[in-house]
Amino acid sequence: MKKLAQQIVFSAVAIGVASAAFAQAKPEDAIRARQAIMRVTAMNFGPLANMAQDKTPFNKDVFMTNAQRLESVWAMNAGQFFVAGSDKPVAGAKIANFTDAKPEIWSQPDKFKTAANNLGEEIGKLAKAARSGDEKAMKAAAGDVGKACKACHDDFRMK
Amino acid sequence: MKKLAQQIVFSAVAIGVASAAFAQAKPEDAIRARQAIMRVTAMNFGPLANMAQDKTPFNKDVFMTNAQRLESVWAMNAGQFFVAGSDKPVAGAKIANFTDAKPEIWSQPDKFKTAANNLGEEIGKLAKAARSGDEKAMKAAAGDVGKACKACHDDFRMK
Repeated sequence: MKKLAQQIVFSAVAIGVASAAFAQAKPEDAIRARQAIMRVTAMNFGPLANMAQDKTPFNKDVFMTNAQRLESVWAMNAGQFFVAGSDKPVAGAKIANFTDAKPEIWSQPDKFKTAANNLGEEIGKLAKAARSGDEKAMKAAAGDVGKACKACHDDFRMK
Repeated sequence: MKKLAQQIVFSAVAIGVASAAFAQAKPEDAIRARQAIMRVTAMNFGPLANMAQDKTPFNKDVFMTNAQRLESVWAMNAGQFFVAGSDKPVAGAKIANFTDAKPEIWSQPDKFKTAANNLGEEIGKLAKAARSGDEKAMKAAAGDVGKACKACHDDFRMK
């Protein structure tokens, strides 16, 4: 009985979600998935960028928390969600009916992968720097993450 | 010189992002922020729900990774982004021009907060169960998280 109740709960909550975790996701689900990952990534990086530029006071706890979360969320691999058919708004989709993805993502997949992997490496270094607790290293690593973000956006995201 | 270069990078990347990390976010940014957090939350919970129901084989590594990430992402506090004016589509906004939020979020704030906090507690228990490595406890905790998701959605999210 408990099992049945759980199934009902899960059906209501998880529907349309589990499939989005794989590259076979429908284009509109894939767009939503990658945009959610990118946005959560940016929400965590924003405060670190501000600290690195001394726009806001350095807060070691926030820096460490966000850097670790950044690494964890980036591991969800947004790149897998640039599936075929998700290069343009999906007609009839209720939501996420837009994308800033440039066609070069699909015409230059190796270059795109390299740029995305580079960001992953810099995020890994940022998390490592955060674990060290060294303020200077943390700020420098945040600068390198920012550069990697920008490099990929310049080539693969519409302005 | 390096500092200037970093500022240019940061300006391009972080613009419009840092502000979204606070309750003073513009309604359209707030909608995007909360939906991104909810989606990433669901993407991490989906596979756990499937494992708890034996729809997919139990994978302890995936379970532990997702449960920890769930806890970390939920700590971003999606609730803070239900700001005034974000109860309906924002006219003229480029994106996120929709929301499934029910008016009860704003008319029954205490009830909403209780439901959201309850989910936070269940997610905390799930992460703790995941750290214990006990399959039975992990699956049971996932069931409780699913119930807490559903309880809040039933009352505060449109069908």
